[in-house]
Amino acid sequence: MHNAASATLTLAQELISRQSVTPEDAGCQALMIERLKAIGFEIYPLRFGDVDNFWAVRGSQGPLLAFAGHTDVVPTGPETHWQHPPFEPVIDDGYLCGRGAADMKGSLASMVVACEEFVAEVPNHNGRIAFLITSDEEGPAANGTVKVVEWLEQQGEKIDWCIVGEPSSTAVLGDIIKNGRRGSLGAELTVKGIQGHVAYPHLAANPIHQVAPALAELACTEWDQGNDYFPATTFQISNFNSGTGATNVIPGEAHIVFNFRFSTEVTEADLRQRTENVLQKHGLEYDIQWKLSGQPFLTERGTLVEAVVSAVASATGTQSQLSTSGGTSDGRFIAPTGAQVVELGPVNATIHKVDERVRAEDLNKLTRVYCQTLRNLLA
Amino acid sequence: MHNAASATLTLAQELISRQSVTPEDAGCQALMIERLKAIGFEIYPLRFGDVDNFWAVRGSQGPLLAFAGHTDVVPTGPETHWQHPPFEPVIDDGYLCGRGAADMKGSLASMVVACEEFVAEVPNHNGRIAFLITSDEEGPAANGTVKVVEWLEQQGEKIDWCIVGEPSSTAVLGDIIKNGRRGSLGAELTVKGIQGHVAYPHLAANPIHQVAPALAELACTEWDQGNDYFPATTFQISNFNSGTGATNVIPGEAHIVFNFRFSTEVTEADLRQRTENVLQKHGLEYDIQWKLSGQPFLTERGTLVEAVVSAVASATGTQSQLSTSGGTSDGRFIAPTGAQVVELGPVNATIHKVDERVRAEDLNKLTRVYCQTLRNLLA
Repeated sequence: MHNAASATLTLAQELISRQSVTPEDAGCQALMIERLKAIGFEIYPLRFGDVDNFWAVRGSQGPLLAFAGHTDVVPTGPETHWQHPPFEPVIDDGYLCGRGAADMKGSLASMVVACEEFVAEVPNHNGRIAFLITSDEEGPAANGTVKVVEWLEQQGEKIDWCIVGEPSSTAVLGDIIKNGRRGSLGAELTVKGIQGHVAYPHLAANPIHQVAPALAELACTEWDQGNDYFPATTFQISNFNSGTGATNVIPGEAHIVFNFRFSTEVTEADLRQRTENVLQKHGLEYDIQWKLSGQPFLTERGTLVEAVVSAVASATGTQSQLSTSGGTSDGRFIAPTGAQVVELGPVNATIHKVDERVRAEDLNKLTRVYCQTLRNLLA
Repeated sequence: MHNAASATLTLAQELISRQSVTPEDAGCQALMIERLKAIGFEIYPLRFGDVDNFWAVRGSQGPLLAFAGHTDVVPTGPETHWQHPPFEPVIDDGYLCGRGAADMKGSLASMVVACEEFVAEVPNHNGRIAFLITSDEEGPAANGTVKVVEWLEQQGEKIDWCIVGEPSSTAVLGDIIKNGRRGSLGAELTVKGIQGHVAYPHLAANPIHQVAPALAELACTEWDQGNDYFPATTFQISNFNSGTGATNVIPGEAHIVFNFRFSTEVTEADLRQRTENVLQKHGLEYDIQWKLSGQPFLTERGTLVEAVVSAVASATGTQSQLSTSGGTSDGRFIAPTGAQVVELGPVNATIHKVDERVRAEDLNKLTRVYCQTLRNLLA
């Protein structure tokens, strides 16, 4: 066996050097598959549309622990703005630098090497270990994890515990473990007035005037108070457009886009009903198109949370905090199957930015955390 | 002397056949000048920038009655939508048809022919008669009446009574005389927030949320109750634009354009102060650019109003109503010199539209109204 630290960093660098901007995989999955096959995983390549995905599983019975993640990365922006070329990974001053170092090729490398270590230690482990890997997490996410989950259901396969390798940490490795995410509910609202000349307002109906008090009310509404795991539900208007450009014309319509990030204390149906109640109370004539991006999900303290919190503590000395903050992740597709899901990965300070990087030593620590989690659950 | 009725319609058709879309005059003023010179007017051509204007005056002393108007017309839109070609005037079923028939080449013809009649009747009239004619009323209005008024001030010239030939009538000729116009005050408001991600609203400040209650308050504010001559002051938002287009970004700024049409019961300074008080009360960080398009003006009942009301009654049998409604006109530039100003012209139902037209007989009546006004004031 090679040294765990350098094995993780070497594999991370091999992955970063493959230019896998969404939806490209660029050979990353082949590399992972080769390593997993070598330690006894069965491989199921699952290409949907233009997206490469795979499922890999080791072991024949008992509870199933899946590592989930993505090989695709976001675009680099102008490469000249990078201190090091984004697809030529280097270790500089203790940091592994390159696009995907933190989000999330570093995690993928740690997952693979952790499994190599664990399988070497405990070849006949309890339960099963799996990988659920996509190359479409940063993009439309239509032919990625959501399709693999459908395929698993068709196979009668069920994930018990899932660790998503998203960069959850904020200051030091493992300080934050995400045990859920808020739901996201969007809407496009069109308020209808009557166009006219500003000199003759009695012949027109100004939709901006009509909607302003309704939006003021929605903006200061307390939707819930959150709970032990979730902050309070938030409402934000992202776009408001109305007007012909002329300064003497009362517009005929106002177009408004808004979004809820919501806790498990309210439901999508509650939010829709309460919003429309406000619109109707203000006498608006409107059309509204709702779009649910993700239901909230939550993995309460239990087997998986205890296993990862304990692994972080023993491998790094850090006491993890649980959090449900932040944007959406592929966990939203896996949690509804009934799986316990957590997100645990490196520090996210540089993700999606130029000069994305991660402490090299943090990736070695992350390998130890994942390996210890395997021991806690399946040894 | 030719017959007054046909003289007016003939001259109106000669003017309409000249394609004087703003700022073009297309020879209309030369035609008017020729006719006025022939009856003893002194002519002062006043070209400013690309705009033809002229001042003409007859008589040497005493109060000055000026006819004011414009030779330019608004564009036709697609000529194929017109029943008759817009610059080929015809009389069809009793209506003179063509671009400018109502706004306001018909009035110009009536003014010239009325003066011809009056001068023939009373060659040594009291006071002075003048014409203030521009070809930039429908456009930016920067090199038109406003510049002529400046020039008159430089000459030490002062208008006592002014009749603007704008189409003031609504159902029958002379039913409405405008004895003032509301002021127009516009503003461009930029409300400053802090851009951010909708998932992290505590790190951002949403300018749409901040401004909504302030706009709701402004929209339902009673600015005044108007008075005997003016309807209540109105506030209308014409444009509201904010947002990056993305559904997950809280915008950094909101851009709002609004307009007051205001009576003589409030001042520009009042409106600015009261608006900014509301913005400040709501704690907004903002920039605002104010633009005064015109002060309100009012000509109360007195010599001029009595003269035109009496002329309408004796020439047409109609009892005129006074009104200050509608958009701005060049009267806004003349009234501040201290002149009494009224607007009196034909029925405005088709102005700025396809198939612009005016009852042929109304133009003959309008000539009689203007001529009777001359008699009332200067005979």
